[in-house]
Amino acid sequence: MFNILFGFPALRVIASAPGKITLFGEHAIVYGYPAIVSSIDRRVYVRAEARSDNEVKIYAKDLRIPGVIVTYRHGEVIVETDYGKTLSAIAYIEKALEITSRYLGTRKGVNLEVTSEMPVGAGLGTSAAVSVATIAAYAKVLGHELSKEEIARLGWQVEKEVQGIASPMDTSITSYGGFLKIVGKGGKYEISKVRVDESLPFVIGYVEREATTKDLVNKVKELRERYGAIIDEIMRVIGEVTLRAEKALINNDLVTLGELMNINHGLLDALGVSNRKLNELVYAARNAGALGSKLTGAGGGGCVIALTPGKQEEVEVAMKLYATLTLKTRLGVEGVKVLVERP
Amino acid sequence: MFNILFGFPALRVIASAPGKITLFGEHAIVYGYPAIVSSIDRRVYVRAEARSDNEVKIYAKDLRIPGVIVTYRHGEVIVETDYGKTLSAIAYIEKALEITSRYLGTRKGVNLEVTSEMPVGAGLGTSAAVSVATIAAYAKVLGHELSKEEIARLGWQVEKEVQGIASPMDTSITSYGGFLKIVGKGGKYEISKVRVDESLPFVIGYVEREATTKDLVNKVKELRERYGAIIDEIMRVIGEVTLRAEKALINNDLVTLGELMNINHGLLDALGVSNRKLNELVYAARNAGALGSKLTGAGGGGCVIALTPGKQEEVEVAMKLYATLTLKTRLGVEGVKVLVERP
Repeated sequence: MFNILFGFPALRVIASAPGKITLFGEHAIVYGYPAIVSSIDRRVYVRAEARSDNEVKIYAKDLRIPGVIVTYRHGEVIVETDYGKTLSAIAYIEKALEITSRYLGTRKGVNLEVTSEMPVGAGLGTSAAVSVATIAAYAKVLGHELSKEEIARLGWQVEKEVQGIASPMDTSITSYGGFLKIVGKGGKYEISKVRVDESLPFVIGYVEREATTKDLVNKVKELRERYGAIIDEIMRVIGEVTLRAEKALINNDLVTLGELMNINHGLLDALGVSNRKLNELVYAARNAGALGSKLTGAGGGGCVIALTPGKQEEVEVAMKLYATLTLKTRLGVEGVKVLVERP
Repeated sequence: MFNILFGFPALRVIASAPGKITLFGEHAIVYGYPAIVSSIDRRVYVRAEARSDNEVKIYAKDLRIPGVIVTYRHGEVIVETDYGKTLSAIAYIEKALEITSRYLGTRKGVNLEVTSEMPVGAGLGTSAAVSVATIAAYAKVLGHELSKEEIARLGWQVEKEVQGIASPMDTSITSYGGFLKIVGKGGKYEISKVRVDESLPFVIGYVEREATTKDLVNKVKELRERYGAIIDEIMRVIGEVTLRAEKALINNDLVTLGELMNINHGLLDALGVSNRKLNELVYAARNAGALGSKLTGAGGGGCVIALTPGKQEEVEVAMKLYATLTLKTRLGVEGVKVLVERP
């Protein structure tokens, strides 16, 4: 991978961290209801190799992450993805190195190579995975094994410093892996693990977004201003769907989980955040045998997720007809991990 | 139209009655929440001509109406359309003649010709329109001018006797025309007029049904058994959407009306009664400029309605790509009416 200029092999580690999807509760989380997020088995890999000098070299050629603007307002969190100005992943990597050095009180020269198994900018949490994997790899090169709690906290700090402000959702799920329930209110977050025995087979389909996250969050906000109780009750129902889904996850009751995904999708459609392409994907998946399917994230395009035990091929083929990109994956995989390639 | 065998012209009348759509509240009405129905400006015409003998001749060649089974159970009304055994419109016409004779205590020979501007079996209330127009026409031939109240009541009786059991929804709206709010509970109905100044431009798109009304009502019932409070709350939200829509109708606030249609559609999607084809139509209409669109009736196929001020052509063209049949229409037109063609 690198030209080794030293007479003896340098310490080389590989850290990886998974992408994420929101399984239940997007939009409702802005109004104080819980969301469930999950890791997916598409990972970002950061290979780090100690250098004998103090230089840092970063190889992350094709990894560009859209700029993200996150705004707090009256206790709401608005995450805005800016497709105009794409921020290179480099900003996250540099900040991760800086924050890790500061935290550990030491620094060392390092070569870094970053690669991703996920499309960047599709709402799969690539920037958080890059930040977290970089922290874990660099800490290891510096001779430290950070806990997941430490990595998650430092990762959140990276996102906050790069983006101005950020929710801890993405950096938590990519650090801990599995499934997490998150409740956010007034800028504070409660994060708890949802214990699920096995990872779950999913297909993800991506279509281009027609609107930014900020536009969509504002659209829902305006709808709420116009229709008060109606929208509040839809949010409350989404909250109940999410809590019911938590039980279904714990009981490994996939039929119920699928039905709840379908209900959640209809409620998101009622909020006006679905569109023709997302619904095409949602119904293509169901008609091909998915137990459930829904849009994930802010909507207006982006990803649709489908629960597909025993039907991954069929569902992926059906979704390919409508999607720019599809991927078969599993939900609930391991979070950040570090391997030493060469001592 | 007929061979006139008499030396002088016989009394000849034309009665017409409109079709209908459900604007808001389908499915929720089964659970005691209000629905709003509207007449559409596609009509059934019944030409009636007195005969000098006592014979009755009915010309209704291409007018076949699917058999309908309506069941009451625990205060729920289940309307089942049976595509296997299509009942000829003749059954409704014969029953309408019989009931009108009985009510007025007189009978007379008559030639009847029945034609329809609507597709039959698409959920547009053709059987009610046929029944009501026949009653009005025959009463006139018998020398009586029945009130709309009388016609609606007799029409309901026709549907009940032909089908075994029926709700008064279709026969009321085709008699009174305009917009009606209907609340049904435990087999009793409250029907009130919604006063709307102008008729509203709509496009209707029809696709084949994949499931019967009974299947869909049962599907929702099973979902409610599994997810109790979640489904109850969705029904309550639909009820609120319907009441809010009543205000928007009265205020002629079409933007709000359209948004509420979109919300209602998402909630129906959450109940699992939409499908891929209906959603294609719904989004094709919105993308072509409809202010709002939703499935109407039981779902699983059938009709989508779109509110289209100034955009009827564009929306119809867009919907034609996905629909078996489209029609431009206006909502809230006049109910049953009778004209004397020849004294």
